[in-house]
Amino acid sequence: MTTVTSTVIRRGRARRRDRVLYQRLADELVGLIETRTLRAGDRLPSVRTYSRQKRVSLATVLRAYQLLEDRGYLEVRPQSGHYVSAAGGQLAPSPSVPRASFAKEEVRVADLAWELLARVNDKGLAPFGIATAAPEHYPAGRLSRILARVTREAGAAGVAYGPPVGHEALLHQLGRRAVAAGLALGPDELLVTNGCTEAIQLALRALTRAGDVLLVESPSYYGFLETAESLGLRVAEVPTDPETGVSLEHLEAAIRRTRPRAFLTNPNFHNPLGFVVADDRKRELVALLARHGVAVVEDDLYGDLHFGDTRPAPLKAFDQTGDVVLCSSFSKTVAPGYRVGWLAGGRHAQRIRKLKLATSIHTNTLAQLTLAEYVSGGGAEHHLRRLRQAFRAQVADYSLAVARLFPEGTRVSRPRGGHLLWVELARGKDTMELSRRALARRIGIVPGRLFSTGDTYGHCFRLNCGFPLRGDREEALETLAGLAGDL
Amino acid sequence: MTTVTSTVIRRGRARRRDRVLYQRLADELVGLIETRTLRAGDRLPSVRTYSRQKRVSLATVLRAYQLLEDRGYLEVRPQSGHYVSAAGGQLAPSPSVPRASFAKEEVRVADLAWELLARVNDKGLAPFGIATAAPEHYPAGRLSRILARVTREAGAAGVAYGPPVGHEALLHQLGRRAVAAGLALGPDELLVTNGCTEAIQLALRALTRAGDVLLVESPSYYGFLETAESLGLRVAEVPTDPETGVSLEHLEAAIRRTRPRAFLTNPNFHNPLGFVVADDRKRELVALLARHGVAVVEDDLYGDLHFGDTRPAPLKAFDQTGDVVLCSSFSKTVAPGYRVGWLAGGRHAQRIRKLKLATSIHTNTLAQLTLAEYVSGGGAEHHLRRLRQAFRAQVADYSLAVARLFPEGTRVSRPRGGHLLWVELARGKDTMELSRRALARRIGIVPGRLFSTGDTYGHCFRLNCGFPLRGDREEALETLAGLAGDL
Repeated sequence: MTTVTSTVIRRGRARRRDRVLYQRLADELVGLIETRTLRAGDRLPSVRTYSRQKRVSLATVLRAYQLLEDRGYLEVRPQSGHYVSAAGGQLAPSPSVPRASFAKEEVRVADLAWELLARVNDKGLAPFGIATAAPEHYPAGRLSRILARVTREAGAAGVAYGPPVGHEALLHQLGRRAVAAGLALGPDELLVTNGCTEAIQLALRALTRAGDVLLVESPSYYGFLETAESLGLRVAEVPTDPETGVSLEHLEAAIRRTRPRAFLTNPNFHNPLGFVVADDRKRELVALLARHGVAVVEDDLYGDLHFGDTRPAPLKAFDQTGDVVLCSSFSKTVAPGYRVGWLAGGRHAQRIRKLKLATSIHTNTLAQLTLAEYVSGGGAEHHLRRLRQAFRAQVADYSLAVARLFPEGTRVSRPRGGHLLWVELARGKDTMELSRRALARRIGIVPGRLFSTGDTYGHCFRLNCGFPLRGDREEALETLAGLAGDL
Repeated sequence: MTTVTSTVIRRGRARRRDRVLYQRLADELVGLIETRTLRAGDRLPSVRTYSRQKRVSLATVLRAYQLLEDRGYLEVRPQSGHYVSAAGGQLAPSPSVPRASFAKEEVRVADLAWELLARVNDKGLAPFGIATAAPEHYPAGRLSRILARVTREAGAAGVAYGPPVGHEALLHQLGRRAVAAGLALGPDELLVTNGCTEAIQLALRALTRAGDVLLVESPSYYGFLETAESLGLRVAEVPTDPETGVSLEHLEAAIRRTRPRAFLTNPNFHNPLGFVVADDRKRELVALLARHGVAVVEDDLYGDLHFGDTRPAPLKAFDQTGDVVLCSSFSKTVAPGYRVGWLAGGRHAQRIRKLKLATSIHTNTLAQLTLAEYVSGGGAEHHLRRLRQAFRAQVADYSLAVARLFPEGTRVSRPRGGHLLWVELARGKDTMELSRRALARRIGIVPGRLFSTGDTYGHCFRLNCGFPLRGDREEALETLAGLAGDL
């Protein structure tokens, strides 16, 4: 028995190691294709040569090539070898960088956003709009079992009022996971919230007053703009490179011109652009903002959904003054419907905690206890690994499909994590009109207009890749591409 | 089998009818004692005489008398009959009515409130402070079973994003219960929120801007003042009669002098005073506010906890213009820790719904589905009947104990529902100091200072009667009375 079990375990481990190896190889090749080092028609090294070069087994190279063939990056020519395919080689270029304007604009996106999100549960809609993922990506069964147990164990306490800052069990797990991500958070810094949106809202309310200027990236998640609008803030948009994030020069210029109170930013797998800011730049960015006395509200919602090997550090890891408020939640990784998020408030923690009390008293007890148990059980890490693989594969599928299906001149982002793509059509194309026509065909997208106070992104849209690109959805994407061509 | 069952049912019905009869009789007698129609030492009619007068059985009268004896209102003198007891006859008088000032004050209560609520889960504290009730008062077991079933049935949908306005099943039940309370709410008016606090917060954000004046009753629930503070509102406090609520004259004067945007009010079983506004006055009040273009945010949190036979109508029932926003939740009646509230936004509904999206997206899915199922099952009405009886008895116990234990000159409110008492010590006594000394003895109370922006209520405090007055708690109340005497 023992021998059989340990053989199975060893085999399981070997298989896992093997998977890591060939996926790493595949990623590297995709990188070469995406940066156009390898182009359509280029021949890849033979399996034998590449295996020698990379010091991996023949099987590993073969699997990596097969994976890329499945994804459409490569094609096999009989008797000849592996070549970069037409689609792979013509992968749409990256989106362009917007010009700087630094206007302090009033925000008006709530009406548009409402129209969009009101249809969140419309089952018939092709799910390319709001940032959701396929139900099978979330551990509903496991959570249900834990919830049933936790509810039984909690008894009356599950129904009674809980502590305003959050339940001890969850706070402990959040602190523990933060340490694993290289963050040392004080126990008095954390606060459990109703999702990341409440966390950001509370942070902004603690840091700003109506009429103040808030810096945001451009483009920026429309939810940020909605929240700013609801608080009467004016926003100044900082031009943002789709691959590297805001430049420090632009940021400093924006600070000098607009005298902002805070910078609301999404440095890890930016929504909608998908970039991750490099560590060095993160350090400089935090220092620059601290020098100018500008607080930071950091949205780290997608931080655990990295396609690379390591989880990027949040800005908060470089915070020396306590002026970075880190916000996140379980909504993109474990359970959107549980509405459990959190924040680490730095030196603003106490103020934010009092606002939470005046805003919603505390967050649902049983959801907190269930997530604490789920995270402490260790199942979360395994789940996250699978989720990252799934999203990486889906994003690759959608990227290639966009390159293949959409009209010439279409550009697309190169996300390093998350499950969102930013698609830029030729200038002059109107994605509000595209959105209307798409909705009439029961296809959801988020038009670029929502990601800015101006009309800089009228020709762009955000494409959600949270659902596998199969069957009806493949057809829907083809239809969408056709509509884009007709514009 | 059938015969036995129906006999049991008939007996059960008879017993229930009987209980209604003797409790009604007991209430009537308490009313006579509280209004001092009957005083200490007064002899009650003999059981036989009273039974004839009231056309009820001897057993019913006997039980009513016994109940009042148990509660300390009456005492039995052997061979002589029932007499109003010293404690019952000396029931503390009602609190006094504050003078009008109509200052538009900035609000600063959050720090104090935080100190208080941070200790919500401190098990060792005598629970006379925040407005909670004993765990056994809530249907934890029943809810757990429903939650387990609902979670299983919902599957992936329990974990996925839900509709921002709330789940259809719960919205339906809320609409249905509203109809039962004489309210016809439009299906597009309702919004599910994270408790009543979020409902009120969203309503105020839709109706006001920082710097605006908000009218509140005086005294007023400190949570209202916290929320106003967090939104940068100034409040004007309208003098409020402890038995009848704000007078229309005072209200109109306050409107003319302070030009408020909204009136935040708690007409049914006011926190902390316990009064209910009469229907006629409700109608006039709503009309008066509509005439002056002042919106109403109505907190109906305690509306289902009436001591009398019928549930009072909310102000919303008299709303002709759509300017009344009705807010409530399950937090005082079914499950505080579930954090599920709602509002009916009238003509402001759409605006408020958009704010909800920008504030917390939506409310926990499984909590909503569980409460929908609980309410639709009919168990809620039975539970509420028992809860009302328990709170009525507890409030009577605490009222009598205050009259018996506290120093002469102490006044106490006459709540018509809910589970809160307002205690007024002699002028000059400092309940902030009382609160500090009480905390040192592990007793929680809420000092009067929290219920106003000024120091009108420095000699008052709120006493929570949510827990049966037994054992340790009886001792704690005695200790508290001693501390009050020493001030």
